[in-house]
Amino acid sequence: MTRNMAVIALLVAALAAPVAAAEAPPLLGFTPAAAEEQAALERRFDDRLSADNLRAWAKHITSRPHHVGSPWGKATAEWIAEQFRSWGYETRTETFEVLFPTPTERSVELLEPRTFTAGLSEPPLPEDATSGQGDEQLPIYNAYSIDGDVTGELVYVNYGVPQDYDELERRGIDVRGRIVIARYGGSWRGIKPKVAAEKGAIGCLIYSDPRGDGYFEGDPYPEGGYRPAEGAQRGSVADMPLYPGDPLTPGVGATADAERLSLEDAETLTKIPVLPLSAADARPLLGALGGPVAPASWRGALPFTYHLGPGPAAVRVRLAFDWSRAPAYDVIAVLKGAERPDEWIIRGNHHDAWVNGATDPVAGMVTLLEEARVIGELAREGFRPKRTLVFAAWDAEEPGLLGSVEWAERHAAELRDKAVAYVNSDSNGRGFLSMGGSHTLQRFMNQVARDVEDPRHAVSAAERVRALAMVEGDADERERALNGTELRLSALGSGSDYTPFLQHLGVASLNVAFGGEGQYGQYHSIYDSFDHYVRFMDPDFAYGVALARVGGRTVLRLAQAELLPFEFTAFAETVSRYVEEVEALADELRQETDAQNRLLELGAFALVAPPGETRVDPPRRDPVPHLNLAPLHNAVVRLRAAADGYDRAVRDAGPGAPAEARRRADALLLHAERALTRPEGLPGRPWFRHFVYAPGLYTGYGVKTLPVVREAIEQRQWDRVDAGVAATAAVLEAFAGEVEKASAALGDAAE
Amino acid sequence: MTRNMAVIALLVAALAAPVAAAEAPPLLGFTPAAAEEQAALERRFDDRLSADNLRAWAKHITSRPHHVGSPWGKATAEWIAEQFRSWGYETRTETFEVLFPTPTERSVELLEPRTFTAGLSEPPLPEDATSGQGDEQLPIYNAYSIDGDVTGELVYVNYGVPQDYDELERRGIDVRGRIVIARYGGSWRGIKPKVAAEKGAIGCLIYSDPRGDGYFEGDPYPEGGYRPAEGAQRGSVADMPLYPGDPLTPGVGATADAERLSLEDAETLTKIPVLPLSAADARPLLGALGGPVAPASWRGALPFTYHLGPGPAAVRVRLAFDWSRAPAYDVIAVLKGAERPDEWIIRGNHHDAWVNGATDPVAGMVTLLEEARVIGELAREGFRPKRTLVFAAWDAEEPGLLGSVEWAERHAAELRDKAVAYVNSDSNGRGFLSMGGSHTLQRFMNQVARDVEDPRHAVSAAERVRALAMVEGDADERERALNGTELRLSALGSGSDYTPFLQHLGVASLNVAFGGEGQYGQYHSIYDSFDHYVRFMDPDFAYGVALARVGGRTVLRLAQAELLPFEFTAFAETVSRYVEEVEALADELRQETDAQNRLLELGAFALVAPPGETRVDPPRRDPVPHLNLAPLHNAVVRLRAAADGYDRAVRDAGPGAPAEARRRADALLLHAERALTRPEGLPGRPWFRHFVYAPGLYTGYGVKTLPVVREAIEQRQWDRVDAGVAATAAVLEAFAGEVEKASAALGDAAE
Repeated sequence: MTRNMAVIALLVAALAAPVAAAEAPPLLGFTPAAAEEQAALERRFDDRLSADNLRAWAKHITSRPHHVGSPWGKATAEWIAEQFRSWGYETRTETFEVLFPTPTERSVELLEPRTFTAGLSEPPLPEDATSGQGDEQLPIYNAYSIDGDVTGELVYVNYGVPQDYDELERRGIDVRGRIVIARYGGSWRGIKPKVAAEKGAIGCLIYSDPRGDGYFEGDPYPEGGYRPAEGAQRGSVADMPLYPGDPLTPGVGATADAERLSLEDAETLTKIPVLPLSAADARPLLGALGGPVAPASWRGALPFTYHLGPGPAAVRVRLAFDWSRAPAYDVIAVLKGAERPDEWIIRGNHHDAWVNGATDPVAGMVTLLEEARVIGELAREGFRPKRTLVFAAWDAEEPGLLGSVEWAERHAAELRDKAVAYVNSDSNGRGFLSMGGSHTLQRFMNQVARDVEDPRHAVSAAERVRALAMVEGDADERERALNGTELRLSALGSGSDYTPFLQHLGVASLNVAFGGEGQYGQYHSIYDSFDHYVRFMDPDFAYGVALARVGGRTVLRLAQAELLPFEFTAFAETVSRYVEEVEALADELRQETDAQNRLLELGAFALVAPPGETRVDPPRRDPVPHLNLAPLHNAVVRLRAAADGYDRAVRDAGPGAPAEARRRADALLLHAERALTRPEGLPGRPWFRHFVYAPGLYTGYGVKTLPVVREAIEQRQWDRVDAGVAATAAVLEAFAGEVEKASAALGDAAE
Repeated sequence: MTRNMAVIALLVAALAAPVAAAEAPPLLGFTPAAAEEQAALERRFDDRLSADNLRAWAKHITSRPHHVGSPWGKATAEWIAEQFRSWGYETRTETFEVLFPTPTERSVELLEPRTFTAGLSEPPLPEDATSGQGDEQLPIYNAYSIDGDVTGELVYVNYGVPQDYDELERRGIDVRGRIVIARYGGSWRGIKPKVAAEKGAIGCLIYSDPRGDGYFEGDPYPEGGYRPAEGAQRGSVADMPLYPGDPLTPGVGATADAERLSLEDAETLTKIPVLPLSAADARPLLGALGGPVAPASWRGALPFTYHLGPGPAAVRVRLAFDWSRAPAYDVIAVLKGAERPDEWIIRGNHHDAWVNGATDPVAGMVTLLEEARVIGELAREGFRPKRTLVFAAWDAEEPGLLGSVEWAERHAAELRDKAVAYVNSDSNGRGFLSMGGSHTLQRFMNQVARDVEDPRHAVSAAERVRALAMVEGDADERERALNGTELRLSALGSGSDYTPFLQHLGVASLNVAFGGEGQYGQYHSIYDSFDHYVRFMDPDFAYGVALARVGGRTVLRLAQAELLPFEFTAFAETVSRYVEEVEALADELRQETDAQNRLLELGAFALVAPPGETRVDPPRRDPVPHLNLAPLHNAVVRLRAAADGYDRAVRDAGPGAPAEARRRADALLLHAERALTRPEGLPGRPWFRHFVYAPGLYTGYGVKTLPVVREAIEQRQWDRVDAGVAATAAVLEAFAGEVEKASAALGDAAE
């Protein structure tokens, strides 16, 4: 520790003091004596972590492409199972048969005003040892696009989200019967073809603009780590916000004998053919567009003027797929709990990749393996977890979270009964710790972040995140950071394997990774390789070790706690903020609507239309009614009271309470998150059952908190707001009831 | 008028009603009867305006390059004088001998890591009839760069403003002994070499990034109107914020026998050699830079990763100039006033161009000529202005406002005595009316904008500006526009010929132009041609006619008013806003300084430094003291009272007051703006004497209002604030005193 750092540590300690002293015990869920034991355990855990293992395993797994259904994918699953077994875990591989289309035909031709045929391939590079494995690489494509052969004029639709079509409509541009080209970014990719099809387009191309992760951001690979001109982003375009997992078996595990939908009835397949393009392939297409110049915020970094079309560029897109099923191998390793075998702490990361997948998923996968190895070693030396540890290596995450979803669906009843928490990772790189998840674990995760040191700086991972907020955050973030306030967990939307646990089953979940200091232009390309990783992501695997410390502490503390370390004031504060947000959203929408209607009456839009260009007035909208959000406010009041009551109960009895009281409290705490779900699910998408966190119908990965209320407002479905408010408030009240019961369980003991 | 437009007109009238009724008489300075006469005059004026004249004259003047000292420049001055004479004006040409360097050697070579020699020329285009006049075109260069032959590593400095160097310092990059390359934009061009030299650079290149006015903005010429890759921006780099005009004769007219500084003593020449580059010439240089990747906001639209350097790019820049003097021909045309010959209304536009100059200055120049022609015609039919009209066609504006400055300096005493107002234009194009100037004329100009119809829409020019604010403005602008509040005049900085009148002599000044709907990538290039203008700027010269209506109304109303139409409540409100701004500036600076110092103590900057890159902590700064701005607040109180008093006096007596009272009031009103100046000028730059409006020392064209106070705060010169506040407050109090006297002059009459 340098001198300056020591000063900082003192200052930081001083800043953090009020929180630490008044609110957070040294270790949530532990008595002081048990906390000391736990600290010793964590020291032993830390000492055994090896960056060399991470490197060797990453090199091994990334040595060949290992997507679901591939030979190396199967070999990887077997190798992982072998490792778990060798470390003493009760290990099994569960196999699901999942729909996994692979392309048999891919063609994009520019027909007018000149001809060009897209190359649709990423060249091998001498600097990248695995980039030449063309025989085993999945080609550039979007999984769950339908087959098609479409020809039409091209229209540039920016990110392809609903607001972008509003802009096009204002310019009199209609995509019906046309093919759209959208750039990656601005939403999860699957939203782009979904909205395009809703608007009447017949095909959808999604390209990587250099503005996003190419030369605009930094030197392209192999000079730097950003996407080269020919690099393209594979990825799923299934309608995941409807349901993730195997498109043919919604709600049930895709075992060999599961009942399956026909392809025609699989609602999550796209309605139109979709294909991703590299910047190099997109450039002649975009460069051939005429029509109005694109709005300033739509322009990327290609060296020409971005036009919207339609045409004169005309394009033919042909796509055909082999619609076979592939086996997905989930590897499950269990270390049974000594005291509470039926309370499960689940730690997961997927093992399948789009190609070699060094960053996504291997950097996360090897971290999980190292955590498991060291815990296995500790177990051989006599350590037995109190609760059961389950390590999971999922297959088929990339096409749509299939491995985790099918497993969670298959074991739904048991998981609802036993799962304490699910801890996910998916990738990793150097930089700042990001933590998302259930806010009932926010305080707990702050202690984890406090206790893991950053590998490059002699401060905790939490302090680095605070420093980032101080230097780059807005006024509120800076102020919070300077006050040493708890780091907020981000709310989880979707895009990784926590989704079935959190949003389908109601299991409190977490997602952790380091990042932000890598050069990330390799995403879902053949260049996400070992060679790339060790140059641009985490050269010495130091942040891999740091992530293992985070993951290891998280599962070990959850496993060993005398009382499960859930805490509810942070959750209540968070929900309260969400309620304020939806209220502000309605108010803003009301003001915007009124202002726009007034401008329409005044004819102001026509008066600013540029000469020689079409401008259609935006539609007049009904005024936004005043909404009754009182049930949500009332629920928040009860939630706050319940949370404070639980805090008091913990202070009075807590980890030192009699075993039976703690057991009863734990049983309630373990199931508390379930109370935030309803069996009938969200309106229109019953698979998603969580009423606080959901992926946005029109954002995809992007989260919508209090989704039923928020999306009804966003979509101006005023007649659905009351029911949404009632359902959400009921869920929050039920949750508060569970917290009150947990307090009572401890309180009885304290008396 | 379409039906919708009629509805709007009604609504707008309703919205504007309170202002119109309570505050603004139908025509400021006129009794109702005189207002009717004036309206009739303006109708006759309007009827005679001819777009065909504008077109024919523009075609004539732009037919050859006509920079100062060129044969066609001389011919143009002679032709203009001939026109004025033929319309009945008392016309004279005043000649000044001004320093006007032209290049004898220009060379930019990339020496490392590969070689490249910049072409430094703009190719002729078949679509542009005058683009091939290479023999008469001024080459691409920056006027008043010194000679030099420098070799050094290259550093990219973004816009080259002081904050950009702060960013470089944070990355440990020093420009001493190096050559900087800055992009156009972000400040007036002359600031870039000034700051570069202050920081120790030995040379400065300024290039046109396609992000600024090239293909990023729209299709390049000749397909569209934006800057082609080889297009470059000529322009002056003299230190104009110190003093504009002939560098050798500050403060006095550059007549043949004027006393002159030696070249070595001319402070406004650059300290280092400077040359502009096209994007095509800059591309190999920028592409050869290594070092850190440029911050995101620094990146332009060239298709590579922007690096900062220094090096490996090494560059040699050689520049030599012929430092001869050139004759500058100002054409002055006078129509003597019948009643008040010694009250002058001056209308000016420059006639010299960098090359053919269709937009800049010809579009403005021909408008002025058409105004003069029609007024001449009216005069032949018997109209005689009450006050004297002076039309001026300035030479040598482009190198640094030389024609107007030398004339104003030469006639300073007479102008201080007689000038009522100076009305400037400089260029024109289709779009929205922009108006800048003395806020004592704000209400007056609102009536002008109210009374000129937009050529493309059946609403007034003012309503179009309001519509723009409604649709694209921020919340405050939208609200003001919806309420029909007076349009604000922008404060004038510098960059055109109003500067000597407003800021040196204290003559109330205005600057008017239409614009915002052209495609403006031709600025200061050979492509600013007639062919470009009629395709992309104002094809039918309809906005030229509209500007003539604005200019004509402005001078005719000023000339004919029974009482000069100055008004002071808008001025008081404006100054009050400026005082609030400087107060807020100090507060923000204080908060920022405190926050940064705290982050420095915490070591936060080091904790977010990207791996492998240098980061130097920003410097610790002394806390910002609390400043005594009370004298300014007190001055504003008096100003408001004086303005209200004058309003009452006008209401009570006003345009209908006895002639002698009006004459006395006018004499005070005419000189009121002089009270905002002090003979000793601003600290460090005595040529600039106006204490409300000045060009920024580090922004150039960009205005700094209340400059002595604002710049002392910006530059953290706390010990200069008190004196600045005192001087500014004294000036404002003196001004209020003049307004009080004017009220008294009218009030005496009313009694």
